[in-house]
Amino acid sequence: MNPKIFFTPGPAAIYPTVAQHTQNAFAEQIPSISHRSPAFQAIYQQTYENIREIFQLPDDYAVLFTGSATEVWERLLQNCVAHETFHLVNGSFSRRFYDFALLLNKMPHLHEVLWGQGFDLAQIEVPTNVEMICVTHNETSTGVSMPVADIHALKDRYPDKLLVVDMVSSAPIPMLDFTKIDAAYFSVQKAFGLPAGLGVWLVNRRCLEKAQTLEDQGQVTGTYHRLTNLWKSFEKFQTPPTPNVLGLYLLSKVTQDLLHKGIRQIRQETNTKAQLLYNAIEAMDGLEIFVKNPDHRSEVVVVANTQGNATELIQKLADQNMVIGSGYGQNKTSQIRVANFPATSLTEVEELLEIMQKTM
Amino acid sequence: MNPKIFFTPGPAAIYPTVAQHTQNAFAEQIPSISHRSPAFQAIYQQTYENIREIFQLPDDYAVLFTGSATEVWERLLQNCVAHETFHLVNGSFSRRFYDFALLLNKMPHLHEVLWGQGFDLAQIEVPTNVEMICVTHNETSTGVSMPVADIHALKDRYPDKLLVVDMVSSAPIPMLDFTKIDAAYFSVQKAFGLPAGLGVWLVNRRCLEKAQTLEDQGQVTGTYHRLTNLWKSFEKFQTPPTPNVLGLYLLSKVTQDLLHKGIRQIRQETNTKAQLLYNAIEAMDGLEIFVKNPDHRSEVVVVANTQGNATELIQKLADQNMVIGSGYGQNKTSQIRVANFPATSLTEVEELLEIMQKTM
Repeated sequence: MNPKIFFTPGPAAIYPTVAQHTQNAFAEQIPSISHRSPAFQAIYQQTYENIREIFQLPDDYAVLFTGSATEVWERLLQNCVAHETFHLVNGSFSRRFYDFALLLNKMPHLHEVLWGQGFDLAQIEVPTNVEMICVTHNETSTGVSMPVADIHALKDRYPDKLLVVDMVSSAPIPMLDFTKIDAAYFSVQKAFGLPAGLGVWLVNRRCLEKAQTLEDQGQVTGTYHRLTNLWKSFEKFQTPPTPNVLGLYLLSKVTQDLLHKGIRQIRQETNTKAQLLYNAIEAMDGLEIFVKNPDHRSEVVVVANTQGNATELIQKLADQNMVIGSGYGQNKTSQIRVANFPATSLTEVEELLEIMQKTM
Repeated sequence: MNPKIFFTPGPAAIYPTVAQHTQNAFAEQIPSISHRSPAFQAIYQQTYENIREIFQLPDDYAVLFTGSATEVWERLLQNCVAHETFHLVNGSFSRRFYDFALLLNKMPHLHEVLWGQGFDLAQIEVPTNVEMICVTHNETSTGVSMPVADIHALKDRYPDKLLVVDMVSSAPIPMLDFTKIDAAYFSVQKAFGLPAGLGVWLVNRRCLEKAQTLEDQGQVTGTYHRLTNLWKSFEKFQTPPTPNVLGLYLLSKVTQDLLHKGIRQIRQETNTKAQLLYNAIEAMDGLEIFVKNPDHRSEVVVVANTQGNATELIQKLADQNMVIGSGYGQNKTSQIRVANFPATSLTEVEELLEIMQKTM
């Protein structure tokens, strides 16, 4: 059977080097090493250094590991918020973060726009008592991106509030200025092209200090994955519980591969492939780009309306080993989502578009 | 370089079939499949059925997946306890569960004995208001096991309280009667011989009902991994966030392998190897079995006192590619810990003992 080519927004196409790295991991007996050993610490440190270079992280940032990016929502709310958050919501994932704040009895403020739309900064007014502003760089459910300049501008307007950025499906593509934000997080099974099972939390000392203050005031901030505890372990390049050691090893290797190729090069290729996708889909009969404002179109998740036949189109492409995503939630049968991650090559994108053109 | 043989209590020796299963997973493109797809649901269902058979789970049990067994401590306390817990503590891990209860502002009652000792049921008195009794079948830090008959007897004495069992490093060896307990949990990187990054939580409807009651009363029970939410996903053989799909696939395959070999056979082999280890270590000059009461000696983690030279002994064995564990915490330099998991064969145990005899 010919292998399928995955253009799904996560779990997604696996980066081409991962299978070999995994075989090496078994040959080196990585799954058996102790998570308290120097061998493990070296893997963590290498991963930290690679991620630091990729994102140009300032010195006051830690790189922490959780079970999923979903977990980071919970940990941010428990550890960095006493009372009030502010959420920019325009899809399922930004909405879920807001829902988590409700469940944890924080007082979340909601600034919501319709699915497919981005935000107009002029319309955003963050109340005085808000402690944390939560933005989503790339809303995976709708294919809407928030321009990084807008994210930075938010910090300029509200420098005293913590600004946290969901990059779950876009990292490492956007060039965020990490001196303008306080935390960001992503999953490895999206643009990094790795097997799922690891969340990555980039977080600065301001967040740590907030967590320490809340703990000192008697707030329950969690147990093993309290931010203070995660950070203390990070300083030894360890994790509080036994982590996904194999996942971490693979992340250390793939970040190395990305750096070797060059992050600038990867960003350029992503941009080129995105333009190709948008232009081709725009020209196709029966498909319509969902996000109207070109400035808000995601480079990594391209969403298009079909004429109610998304399921049929997805199946026809699958029959030709091209796996694209369905719409999310309410748009499951009316939209398609095409991921444009570093693991898929320009040739593969061209191949997909050729087959789509013949199939439509 | 010759491969090392790991006798460490976790991360541990990898079950012999795992490397090949992993290669198959990549060939079948498992890391790219959607966690909402029928292909994923089939993996979850197969894992559930295998685990159900291995542990002879009653119908009212769910099998849930978390990032680690450590996470299960937090989720049990958040979801199944309003006010009071009771902890049998005789080592680092049972103590940590108690510490988690303190951090979460539950009122934990402590029944503690010295490291290396087990419990005398006659000495245990659980206060009336306690909602959950927490026992550790196998204290990985000290090599003390609690006889399953004692665990069952606790339930007979306190049928109205939830009884939860830490089997982190012993599952699937002990033959627990799951009608006598309400939840148990383990890590895959111990006796199952898998790469770390997955906690498994076996939990019954009584726990679910308690969680629902607490939610209805307005208690904060968490967000994505609330027990009610995990259970709702389980009913579709899904997980709330993207899980460690590869880890789950490997668990489905290794549980299949264990069933194919026969759990009874595996338990017998474990017992045979344990007797061999205890007898040989007892006879060695310079080593002394740590756990005095034979009824409380763990079959899967054998702990011995050295004469202060544990580090040296461990190094000498490592030079011959035999990796054993150091003592835990305060006993790091004075004790050795030898894991006896299904992944290590009788021949390998004999080889270890032969080298130890020559080395001592």
